[in-house]
Amino acid sequence: GELARAQPVSTPEVEAFLDTLKWDKNGLVVAIAQNVDTGAILMQGFANRDAISATIASRRATFFSRSRSQLWTKGETSHNFIHVQDISIDCDRDSIVYLGQPDGPTCHTGAETCYYTSVPMDEPKLLASTLYALEELIARRKTEEIAPGAKPSWTRRLQQDPKLLCSKIREEASELCQTVEASEGMERTVSEMADLLYHSMVLLSVQNVKLEEVTTELRKRFGQSGIEEKSKRPPKPTAG
Amino acid sequence: GELARAQPVSTPEVEAFLDTLKWDKNGLVVAIAQNVDTGAILMQGFANRDAISATIASRRATFFSRSRSQLWTKGETSHNFIHVQDISIDCDRDSIVYLGQPDGPTCHTGAETCYYTSVPMDEPKLLASTLYALEELIARRKTEEIAPGAKPSWTRRLQQDPKLLCSKIREEASELCQTVEASEGMERTVSEMADLLYHSMVLLSVQNVKLEEVTTELRKRFGQSGIEEKSKRPPKPTAG
Ligand SMILES: [Zn+2]
Ligand SMILES: [Zn+2]
Ligand SMILES: [Zn+2]
Ligand SMILES: [Zn+2]
Ligand SMILES: [Zn+2]
Ligand SMILES: [Zn+2]
Ligand SMILES: [Zn+2]
Ligand SMILES: [Zn+2]
Ligand SMILES: [Zn+2]
Repeated sequence: GELARAQPVSTPEVEAFLDTLKWDKNGLVVAIAQNVDTGAILMQGFANRDAISATIASRRATFFSRSRSQLWTKGETSHNFIHVQDISIDCDRDSIVYLGQPDGPTCHTGAETCYYTSVPMDEPKLLASTLYALEELIARRKTEEIAPGAKPSWTRRLQQDPKLLCSKIREEASELCQTVEASEGMERTVSEMADLLYHSMVLLSVQNVKLEEVTTELRKRFGQSGIEEKSKRPPKPTAG
Repeated sequence: GELARAQPVSTPEVEAFLDTLKWDKNGLVVAIAQNVDTGAILMQGFANRDAISATIASRRATFFSRSRSQLWTKGETSHNFIHVQDISIDCDRDSIVYLGQPDGPTCHTGAETCYYTSVPMDEPKLLASTLYALEELIARRKTEEIAPGAKPSWTRRLQQDPKLLCSKIREEASELCQTVEASEGMERTVSEMADLLYHSMVLLSVQNVKLEEVTTELRKRFGQSGIEEKSKRPPKPTAG
């Protein structure tokens, strides 16, 4: 644990920044860790000056443990660190978000996030933001029992029939292009992009790929200007 | 304001749930509001028993204002409510997330979220989760000045040439399909999905459509089993 704990590093810039925060009477602000790829809120703790300066210096999410009265770097025992990419503070400067990539499950229970418990409300709920909730729904379809004689869902049919799935993806890509080619306007664009996104997420489920792997890939590319580098290459000829 | 303030509604189920939370010595838990479509953290406040029961009853994010010692429903003056779809609590039950759809900007400054201030770190930062950061980068390309003689970025070239853009989208859709058709494995699937997602997001920028509109559309569809209803319809013939 001790060696993996991030240490505060005092610099004039960091000290000047810390002076602008609105600390509570215990010298703390609320600190929230968020997954940079999925947007999932991973955990919430508190941070004092040293916790924030240790996070800035090490880029590992670090908190102040109120029960043990000491710094605590998430991952110092589990080695599941949260690698911080961005820190932002709220308008009245008493709350801070660590936006980062977790090495593994954040919760000590092994759950991806500490917020795995949903409060019962009247209607069916979404446990994650929309795309990740849709991904879960698609994953459930893949393994659900289908009673003899019952019709499988559209999602399940696509999962069982790669030819149908691929013909739908090519069709939806074409319909999305037609919104530009035929100037069909914003409403149709929204609808066709939703069609394409849904059908290609079904393909991801068939290939056992998580949307998070795709967003991580995108982050690597545009973070390193990978997408922009492509501009030096001529576009490949269109397939088909 | 007063009329728009949500009122607590006591039911045995809600009271039983509230009894399981770990309240601090002021009877509060940390309460975080998150955008269900984008994953953006909108604001952070505190909630007491009444604030949570008012939120559950009204489905409008409601907090306890420590400075005014009273309930406060986000939107009671601005009418920008946060319509709560899901509530979750963390593993030690002292922190709560309201996941909802905001009617408009959450911050009193007019910013979409209260966390609009980024802390200066060494490297370029991402202000939102990956897909929304990519959307911002694509939007910036659309309006950037290109010095005479300089080569535009790949993104800008796509934005200026609908024919090139559409041929790329159809190509990338086909390449994604080929990962299934030719059993190309997970790594290629990730890469091709990233290609398709990026290029179709450039199309969204051309059509002035926000990714958030697409995820809202997807949430409406699968929330109402709209996608599943499609299974009753035969697939349309493939275009092209
Ligand atoms: Zn605040
Ligand atoms: Zn690591
Ligand atoms: Zn936990
Ligand atoms: Zn379509
Ligand atoms: Zn907690
Ligand atoms: Zn509303
Ligand atoms: Zn604010
Ligand atoms: Zn290609
Ligand atoms: Zn490709």
